[in-house]
Amino acid sequence: MSIQITPEIVASMAAGSAVFGGGGGGDPALGELMAAHAVSKYGPVDLIDLDDLDDDSLIVPIAFIGAPTVIQEKIPNGIEGKLILEAMEGLLDRPVGAFMSAELGGLNGVIPVAWCARHGIPLADADLMGRAFPELQMVTPTIFDREISPVVLVDERGNVGVFRTETNEWAEKLVRSVTVAMGGSASLGLYPMTAEVARDVSVRGSISRSIEVGRALLDSPDDPLDALARSTGAVKLIEGKLIDVERRTEAGWASGTAIVEGTGPDTGSVLRVEFQNENLVAIRDGEPAATVPDIITLVDIHTGRPVVTEILRYGQRVAAVALPCDPVWRTERGLELVGPRRFGYDIDYTPVGEPL
Amino acid sequence: MSIQITPEIVASMAAGSAVFGGGGGGDPALGELMAAHAVSKYGPVDLIDLDDLDDDSLIVPIAFIGAPTVIQEKIPNGIEGKLILEAMEGLLDRPVGAFMSAELGGLNGVIPVAWCARHGIPLADADLMGRAFPELQMVTPTIFDREISPVVLVDERGNVGVFRTETNEWAEKLVRSVTVAMGGSASLGLYPMTAEVARDVSVRGSISRSIEVGRALLDSPDDPLDALARSTGAVKLIEGKLIDVERRTEAGWASGTAIVEGTGPDTGSVLRVEFQNENLVAIRDGEPAATVPDIITLVDIHTGRPVVTEILRYGQRVAAVALPCDPVWRTERGLELVGPRRFGYDIDYTPVGEPL
Repeated sequence: MSIQITPEIVASMAAGSAVFGGGGGGDPALGELMAAHAVSKYGPVDLIDLDDLDDDSLIVPIAFIGAPTVIQEKIPNGIEGKLILEAMEGLLDRPVGAFMSAELGGLNGVIPVAWCARHGIPLADADLMGRAFPELQMVTPTIFDREISPVVLVDERGNVGVFRTETNEWAEKLVRSVTVAMGGSASLGLYPMTAEVARDVSVRGSISRSIEVGRALLDSPDDPLDALARSTGAVKLIEGKLIDVERRTEAGWASGTAIVEGTGPDTGSVLRVEFQNENLVAIRDGEPAATVPDIITLVDIHTGRPVVTEILRYGQRVAAVALPCDPVWRTERGLELVGPRRFGYDIDYTPVGEPL
Repeated sequence: MSIQITPEIVASMAAGSAVFGGGGGGDPALGELMAAHAVSKYGPVDLIDLDDLDDDSLIVPIAFIGAPTVIQEKIPNGIEGKLILEAMEGLLDRPVGAFMSAELGGLNGVIPVAWCARHGIPLADADLMGRAFPELQMVTPTIFDREISPVVLVDERGNVGVFRTETNEWAEKLVRSVTVAMGGSASLGLYPMTAEVARDVSVRGSISRSIEVGRALLDSPDDPLDALARSTGAVKLIEGKLIDVERRTEAGWASGTAIVEGTGPDTGSVLRVEFQNENLVAIRDGEPAATVPDIITLVDIHTGRPVVTEILRYGQRVAAVALPCDPVWRTERGLELVGPRRFGYDIDYTPVGEPL
């Protein structure tokens, strides 16, 4: 059964995608605008289960790359999807059967809808992270020894780069440097694969799940935390006020720290959240409260909407919650790739567990 | 009439190439070793006039890119030519008829011989500068509105990037950033063109000319300056001792300043040479003595060999000479692209003229 992605569904997708994005993936508001516009203009997009695609159908995961702070100002102009589509079809000598979100997060969880609408192809109901991560090799295909190549990187001017690298880490290094040279953000297609392979190496059903979670959130404006807890098993880390945000855009990422001072039942507590595009660790009163690969998301208490890292600002009333990540990340291989130590934190990973 | 490039010819090529390189293009000693080895192992290479190639024969200009200081330590491993050849043939769907030196300078004027020998293809007797320049768009094809794309960039690990850019300047920007990410040096193929086009947009006969000049230099170990003047019209700027060399490797270039204190007839004079891979301007006693696009080359007085910028060192006895550039660079368009103002110097270009 496939879902038709209409403008209404896009709104739920954007809200849900930002929940799973853990502060990353770019501002969903921009993705929502672009996707809703494209769907209105070109018609709804089929969200298709991988089982409903032919085994050898070509799936191309796509995403924006760069500092979300930059993407907010250097907006894609719409030709990116076409450039990626044409380059991939030329390289692999076959038509693209479906696009896929490379990461479930903010803008990146939604924007593929715009490209699918424009080019009349379905969106696969899956992604490569079940959340968002800051580097290209931090995806489930790496766990399953799948190659990232060829990678197609394009910018809004029409510049196109194609990479075939010896390792997925080398692709991250080379593509990141070009992204910076392109002005700090770009669009890419990567890990092209058949539907048969995708069934084994992606996080399946993540897009329809994010639509459900987004809908639950939008349906409960008065109690977003409860809606989140019920729909995702999210655990509350703190509720309070943002009293400090330090943010720097460097090497193609937006990195920094946000400090939440507890209010109400959390008065007297302080939560420090460190991020590199995505929120990586949350330290409550000096003790780790949640870490990657679990998902740490800040939610605006007044609107119920998740707040991505690039729009955090002093004085916001927020709750920080932690959601369990996809089980694949809790394996030894998964933690090696995206556990807290991979990001330079001398902290053991403890799975998020207790209910809110 | 084609010349057979034997190990003996390689030695002359290396010496001549370094004269025209104006301090850039990389250390010719490394290129000489690699080319002589390849020619001994795989047989001589045909240096072929563009008139002797079919009109539609595919010519691929090739070069190392990066800071020569890095290339000295991060030596290519021999697979680069193959990767470029295969990628270009795949992209353009036809066999490569000949390689060409993208720049006539140091290592880059010689190394294509090694790749030609290994893959059994001729070397075109031409290049895209008639000297060396630090940026990819600083070539004669840009003057004639030829596109750089596709550009193939490879490293010694087997990583391959292919670029199609909106302008030649964008290729420089993107390729440079990947070069830095690859560790500061890489190999590339660019401006692929047919022989018919190459006849109009390249500096023809430059390789055979560099062989002649190199031979003249090697044949006159006792009076290299005289040999240079006779074979190239070089003008002496100063003869003396290097009393200061300041060098930094940054953004994929080796930049810096060398100061020569005059001795003998030049006692009392000081020449300051500023370089970015290549020598860009020579200031004698506060007055410009020579500038890009003319060629400023330092020659070791004791050995008669040109000294590339990355091996300049305190105490060397050198003469600085200036050679006239190819006439195409003295046009308005040429000076716009590679004149002194393009490199940030507030100096008018005055052609090198008077004999030594």
